[in-house]
Amino acid sequence: MSLEAPGFGFELIARDGAARRGRLTTAHGTAETPAFMAVGTAGTVKGLLPEQVAGSGTEILLGNTYHLMLRPGAERVAALGGLHRFMQWPGPILTDSGGFQVMSLAELRQLDEDGVTFKSHLDGSPHALTPERAVEIQALLGSDIAMVLDECTRYPATLEEAEASMRLSLRWAERCRRAFRPRSGHALFGIVQGSVYPALRQACAEALTGIGFDGYAIGGLAVGEGQVSTFAMLEATTPALPAEQPRYLMGVGKPADILGAVQRGVDMFDCVLPTRSGRTGQGFTRRGQVNLRNARHKDDPRPLDPDCGCPACGRFSRAYLHHLFRAEEMLGPILLTLHNLHYYQELMAGIRAAIEAGTLADVAAAFAEQQAAGDLAPL
Amino acid sequence: MSLEAPGFGFELIARDGAARRGRLTTAHGTAETPAFMAVGTAGTVKGLLPEQVAGSGTEILLGNTYHLMLRPGAERVAALGGLHRFMQWPGPILTDSGGFQVMSLAELRQLDEDGVTFKSHLDGSPHALTPERAVEIQALLGSDIAMVLDECTRYPATLEEAEASMRLSLRWAERCRRAFRPRSGHALFGIVQGSVYPALRQACAEALTGIGFDGYAIGGLAVGEGQVSTFAMLEATTPALPAEQPRYLMGVGKPADILGAVQRGVDMFDCVLPTRSGRTGQGFTRRGQVNLRNARHKDDPRPLDPDCGCPACGRFSRAYLHHLFRAEEMLGPILLTLHNLHYYQELMAGIRAAIEAGTLADVAAAFAEQQAAGDLAPL
Repeated sequence: MSLEAPGFGFELIARDGAARRGRLTTAHGTAETPAFMAVGTAGTVKGLLPEQVAGSGTEILLGNTYHLMLRPGAERVAALGGLHRFMQWPGPILTDSGGFQVMSLAELRQLDEDGVTFKSHLDGSPHALTPERAVEIQALLGSDIAMVLDECTRYPATLEEAEASMRLSLRWAERCRRAFRPRSGHALFGIVQGSVYPALRQACAEALTGIGFDGYAIGGLAVGEGQVSTFAMLEATTPALPAEQPRYLMGVGKPADILGAVQRGVDMFDCVLPTRSGRTGQGFTRRGQVNLRNARHKDDPRPLDPDCGCPACGRFSRAYLHHLFRAEEMLGPILLTLHNLHYYQELMAGIRAAIEAGTLADVAAAFAEQQAAGDLAPL
Repeated sequence: MSLEAPGFGFELIARDGAARRGRLTTAHGTAETPAFMAVGTAGTVKGLLPEQVAGSGTEILLGNTYHLMLRPGAERVAALGGLHRFMQWPGPILTDSGGFQVMSLAELRQLDEDGVTFKSHLDGSPHALTPERAVEIQALLGSDIAMVLDECTRYPATLEEAEASMRLSLRWAERCRRAFRPRSGHALFGIVQGSVYPALRQACAEALTGIGFDGYAIGGLAVGEGQVSTFAMLEATTPALPAEQPRYLMGVGKPADILGAVQRGVDMFDCVLPTRSGRTGQGFTRRGQVNLRNARHKDDPRPLDPDCGCPACGRFSRAYLHHLFRAEEMLGPILLTLHNLHYYQELMAGIRAAIEAGTLADVAAAFAEQQAAGDLAPL
């Protein structure tokens, strides 16, 4: 537990190889790790009521600073009592710094030593994001875990480009650390950059540890470099991070990516895949991904995943889900988002139990075998 | 209770003037009347899980034959166990005959004595709907209450046009009655047409009563003729219908329309207003309609309707609902559909209680006064 953020804590409960079973404590309660954070971009996990999100086993959400600063605005959210109250999510919330989405969504963006200026993709209004403002916005939102502003190094990048970008992110990290005003149970995480260069990743991890954060994220992966490279970077990075603090792999990923990252010492994840895929008809199952828009489901009375206990699989047929997607009915995305989040959270619960039992390698092997078996045979 | 449909029944519990308090009994349970049926067009009340629909106080749904016959298809729904199982709605379902939507949605429609042929608005495929096929489709869907195929007389129509159309609908009604195969708890309703001509309405009601149905709908209103004319037609029609059978005003309406129709002896209603308006940001409240997209709500921490006990008003602010609609988040339509359905069902519950207490006139006066007061003053 860091001195700067009293009340925030991370407890290690068990280990299995490099994998860790832990518990985050925040101003808004706890989250068991390894944890999957559902993405609630603009103050809502798309299509779900808060109790449906909680019912999936989700304990901690991610909110996007870029979206919330533009609409409804950080000062407005603060005046309305903060993000937890605004969206009626009583549990922990982590917010990103906004930097990643400025780079992927905003227009006319200009980056210099001070920070980044850009125009909103919504209405063209001008905005600036500096390390200090990123920390201020996240305090206005009232998130339990804030992230430093960093530059997500583009991929591919030369060693020189990657180092220059990483050094800029380090200078911004120091400014964020100075700007962060500790409140009980609230935390600030640093972000390790360094592209696909192990030496840069290690140097960045050591420099961030020197500054001192409540947790450490690993950024700039899952941006096109592939799973092999992602895993290699984790192997270079996690040993250089303090064992007693949480580690968060940003924006990852598919179930197999998460499993492999846990085996390499990662504690926290977020990804739009279960929610975004749920909206487009892609279901995650114990037998791999299933596209419910496919005509082969139109007469199938079986549930999407016979082994799933979610509100969709417990009652509705593939034929019904297929119908909802073909008819562009809102209930299709709702049910499949519910299912996918349940699937992800059941995966995380299984991972946590396996670490406690020292059987994570067996669970990983069984997972790969199940996925390879493919979907149910046609009726 | 009619001999043709054993198990289906309508019990009159109380009267207050022409208003009736009753109870429908069907193969899938009961519904208290006056009842508002939520519209579940294509096998789903848009945006809501079945338990959310039931949680609003909704006891009976309406399904649209036209939509379901085209997609997923009546034979497919039957093979999957019927509409109740398909959409997991355990309570009563009424289906319309498809005729109204053929006339408003389908392409290249041709109507003659036998029925109507048309091309699907989805894929241009050719279809035919006859009185016999309309009854067959509704049996395949497994609805508890089926409607006869009728021609919804266009508005305006001359007396001669309206009578010719009404006579065709009567001949179709007879064919539907002959084609209907009684199953326990299932019912067939006739439909009174006759445009805005009281004598035609009365003649149609008497002719339908002569054929004999389990209930009687009043069709072809709320198509542009205005509330005064609608109420005048009800006053001409309901006295000509059997007192011991249920009466259903199709496609109506706004809260004030429903209240006035109950006062004129109507027992059942359906309307897309609460659900469709919920999707576009229009909320129904005790103080009239409120447009949540309006900027005056963006900083308002108050609930949409402080007197409402729905899942939206109990927790979320107008500012949050406004944000969700501005950000085009699915949760906006979900929450406002939930609210609007709750509002409608609380209105119906109040009407039922008032009939039992003999105070419907007082409740109607108080309703008009509340609505006239207008929305909450700005903060």
